[in-house]
Amino acid sequence: MTDDKPDIRPYSPGLEGVIAAETSLGYVDGVAGRLLYRGYRIGDLVERGTFPAVANLLWTGDWRPGHRLATGPLPDAVLTALRSLPGDAKPMDALRTAVSVWGATQGLAWPPTPEQARAVTAFSPTALAAFARIRSGEDPIEPDPSLDLVPGFLYQLTGRRPDDGTARALDAYFIVGAEHGLNASTFAARVIVSTRSDIASAVCGAIGALKGPLHGGAPSEVVEQIHTVGSPERAEQWVRETLDRGERLMGFGHRVYRAYDPRAAALRKVAESLQHPPEWLALAIAVEDVALRVLAERHPERALKTNVEFYAAPVLQGVGLTPDLFPATFALARHAGWTAHVLEQAADNRLIRPDARYTGPAERDLPT
Amino acid sequence: MTDDKPDIRPYSPGLEGVIAAETSLGYVDGVAGRLLYRGYRIGDLVERGTFPAVANLLWTGDWRPGHRLATGPLPDAVLTALRSLPGDAKPMDALRTAVSVWGATQGLAWPPTPEQARAVTAFSPTALAAFARIRSGEDPIEPDPSLDLVPGFLYQLTGRRPDDGTARALDAYFIVGAEHGLNASTFAARVIVSTRSDIASAVCGAIGALKGPLHGGAPSEVVEQIHTVGSPERAEQWVRETLDRGERLMGFGHRVYRAYDPRAAALRKVAESLQHPPEWLALAIAVEDVALRVLAERHPERALKTNVEFYAAPVLQGVGLTPDLFPATFALARHAGWTAHVLEQAADNRLIRPDARYTGPAERDLPT
Repeated sequence: MTDDKPDIRPYSPGLEGVIAAETSLGYVDGVAGRLLYRGYRIGDLVERGTFPAVANLLWTGDWRPGHRLATGPLPDAVLTALRSLPGDAKPMDALRTAVSVWGATQGLAWPPTPEQARAVTAFSPTALAAFARIRSGEDPIEPDPSLDLVPGFLYQLTGRRPDDGTARALDAYFIVGAEHGLNASTFAARVIVSTRSDIASAVCGAIGALKGPLHGGAPSEVVEQIHTVGSPERAEQWVRETLDRGERLMGFGHRVYRAYDPRAAALRKVAESLQHPPEWLALAIAVEDVALRVLAERHPERALKTNVEFYAAPVLQGVGLTPDLFPATFALARHAGWTAHVLEQAADNRLIRPDARYTGPAERDLPT
Repeated sequence: MTDDKPDIRPYSPGLEGVIAAETSLGYVDGVAGRLLYRGYRIGDLVERGTFPAVANLLWTGDWRPGHRLATGPLPDAVLTALRSLPGDAKPMDALRTAVSVWGATQGLAWPPTPEQARAVTAFSPTALAAFARIRSGEDPIEPDPSLDLVPGFLYQLTGRRPDDGTARALDAYFIVGAEHGLNASTFAARVIVSTRSDIASAVCGAIGALKGPLHGGAPSEVVEQIHTVGSPERAEQWVRETLDRGERLMGFGHRVYRAYDPRAAALRKVAESLQHPPEWLALAIAVEDVALRVLAERHPERALKTNVEFYAAPVLQGVGLTPDLFPATFALARHAGWTAHVLEQAADNRLIRPDARYTGPAERDLPT
């Protein structure tokens, strides 16, 4: 802003290491392998809670394990918009569009409220299920208010009420995906709402950010990997051959977690506790055990550990989702965290408006 | 990320004063009252350029004063979505939705390109004009490829090809609104695309951010003010009475510009140069002259100057826009800057992912 004096303020590309918000929602402790939501361990929340209870904890700070939330209704305008999309539209584009249309129908007033957060979190599973059915030539299914959000989503997607184990596995996935501090999509949501815009605009922006492969991850590659291995007995040979070829194992290592990713641990535990453990689980456990042993042999200095995608991918596939729906399903879970951050930002709002350093040409005349 | 050590890194709320990007696009010099696009003065660009030429300069760095860009076609899916919106939907919600649907139909690949920037910047005026007509019960109008973007937008909005003066005045508004460094909406666009997401996701997020009143401003209040004054002769009395009541004059003062806002100067100059100066201009000039004199008398230490909204609002109304379309029309202009920042971010990309400081409860057990 000064008159041609060089701008010597420090610049950290990607804002790495720069604090851009204070939050009491999620605490990510990569060194110890801990993830806390409002102080509670993610493993405890998965063991004793449901996604609606955890979402409510994030929105309000209150722990009510019996809190319920069914999927929400689909406004006609959203249904029309989803039907008009090309059949090969990306699910993330469809979800972003659905939330945008939903917002246009809601007359959302400032400030955002827990009711608004609840409404959009309940709406989006219905919208994604409707899109998935429409593109398969099937009719959308109305919400069943007797079902909680995650089994309700599966019902609207497949037309069948899921068994308890299936619902429990996906619910656990929704809990571990609900919140993870200030990632790029959550930050986008906070920037948008900091202008006193509305919660739908913030969620649209967050979906757009999560769509990027540098953020949303690649769980579908983990699914392919487990399919390639085929059986537990083949795990050791496959892991060694893959590493010998210099290829990466999918589902290991994380930017933040140096220890075991606590979300992977929670998902494995839920899967192991199911009455009828799915077939993929024995395979995934075998691959994990071998991979950790071989990785530790070869890179003892690196401490590469299983990340959340390693168990998330088979859970998502196990409950019947096609891989191209994985990122949008992750977005459904993350709605809880996005909207909680929106509420937190709005409660003590200040416009997020950093500076840029100008590196272009000095003042000059237009060529004649 | 450390294990329970207090996080003592500095935190600047709103990222005020923090550099979050390097850019060669816009340079805002509030002290001297200068705004440069790639080094060129905004006044020169308005005098010698058109919006398509300026947008092309931002996208490519090349100054081609003859560069043309017509408004783009409306995919059927967008038309269907716009028709399904409630008649009282906010124009910004409609524009955000239109861009989201457009993105879903385009198969946008990484990296974003100048062609993608051109396409979305050309698409959105058609979409906004279509929405405005649909809600009035009129049919949308097809683009006229013989018209440049701004007259094309007015034609599709009104059904009449605008006279040269009207087109010139709105084109000048589009040029001064095209780019302004790292405001909240532009920053949101950069955060979103930094995940390797697509240009439509970035523009959706930016529209959502611009929708907030802390960002988009309130030009419609300036229009009301000028209407209230009524005639140049009443200006002095009205200004003094308003200030005596302790009320604010709209259209004066700016967070960044301490000197005269160069965008206001450029717009006034264009308006004065028109062959048939519109009625509002004499009124606006009278109000401005009186207001600056009286404000300087009363607050000599503050140097409050005319800002861009003072002339933007009457230009927008003068060309026939209703006040509720002002923010979305501003968004059409800012598409040029948003998409130029998207290209700049992608060209040397790094995920924008700041940290948060956790201020919530320490690790604790769930209540039993």
